[in-house]
Amino acid sequence: MVTAPTTIKFLKQPTAIAWVEQALANLDTILLDHSHCERKAAGVALNLMFRYPSNTKLVRSLTTIAQEELAHFEQVNQILEQRGIPLGPLAAPPYGAGLRAQIRPQEPHRLLDSLLVSGLIEARSHERLGLLGAHCPDPALAAFYRGLMASEARHYGIYWVLATTYCDRDQVNHRLEELSTLESELLATLHPEPRIHS
Amino acid sequence: MVTAPTTIKFLKQPTAIAWVEQALANLDTILLDHSHCERKAAGVALNLMFRYPSNTKLVRSLTTIAQEELAHFEQVNQILEQRGIPLGPLAAPPYGAGLRAQIRPQEPHRLLDSLLVSGLIEARSHERLGLLGAHCPDPALAAFYRGLMASEARHYGIYWVLATTYCDRDQVNHRLEELSTLESELLATLHPEPRIHS
Repeated sequence: MVTAPTTIKFLKQPTAIAWVEQALANLDTILLDHSHCERKAAGVALNLMFRYPSNTKLVRSLTTIAQEELAHFEQVNQILEQRGIPLGPLAAPPYGAGLRAQIRPQEPHRLLDSLLVSGLIEARSHERLGLLGAHCPDPALAAFYRGLMASEARHYGIYWVLATTYCDRDQVNHRLEELSTLESELLATLHPEPRIHS
Repeated sequence: MVTAPTTIKFLKQPTAIAWVEQALANLDTILLDHSHCERKAAGVALNLMFRYPSNTKLVRSLTTIAQEELAHFEQVNQILEQRGIPLGPLAAPPYGAGLRAQIRPQEPHRLLDSLLVSGLIEARSHERLGLLGAHCPDPALAAFYRGLMASEARHYGIYWVLATTYCDRDQVNHRLEELSTLESELLATLHPEPRIHS
């Protein structure tokens, strides 16, 4: 099995084949974690709307993202139900906390970093769901993953556009360079527990 | 102007005519506050899903509620845009914090109280949007408010059903009696700043 070299803007390093093997060997856990990821992504979008209530373009774009994440959350939960996998908590891998720790507390850095971190997570999700769509042996599940890819790609595009709307383009590029390097470093060692971002 | 006597289960006291007069005299502020209420309601539903990830019925019902609140949020924001009212922050009235202060921190009380507080807020929103639907002199806006009433009513029904799903019916009734009394007391004195829950 060979993973396609990534062509996804934002990502410094493509996902290693070891992640694909771990995920396919633990599909039930990956599905449950995916459900959590969708709900968390909706929550992050809502929190950003709450923090920047005057930024009309941000509020409008993130409303769309939150709605789509909730629709995906519902879809994943239906698959969990069909497969008899009960909903339940799941410890998060270090990835999200590692990225969030990079968000500088002072504005306008906080806004820029928050948007880029969300964009990076969406970009990585897009890449990994694409890998599951390409390699998952269950045709229905593979089709489901491929079906989600378009909106994940749109989401990281939206976060990128918002960053360049509210922040200087050079600063955005410089900071993205730093954060995307860190993002790949966080995934350089496979986390032992199978997750979308292990 | 006479307000119709409430027939809404949950609410001890109907809204006073003074609120309707305050709201109609400050419709721009009420619209902006309504936008915040819809986003907050979606956030509360998401937070409950996050706190009780194993409660499948709760997760499923609150996903629907969060989606509907976000759709309303988008609708209100479109009306704000049509009217040239910029999005922006707005200080919350004491109502929400007063109700949340009643949520007991220990489980299973915390779940019961959280569901009943959300149900009470939905019930009051249903009543007040209905009053705006009946008394707003702008026919398009009045129709918009009436259009929201059905889902607000469904929402408090859902919170009630969830409370009786996870908690003993007698306990639910007893606690609802306490909280609904407090809810009406919080609104007995009109808050000087016009809000959906002033």
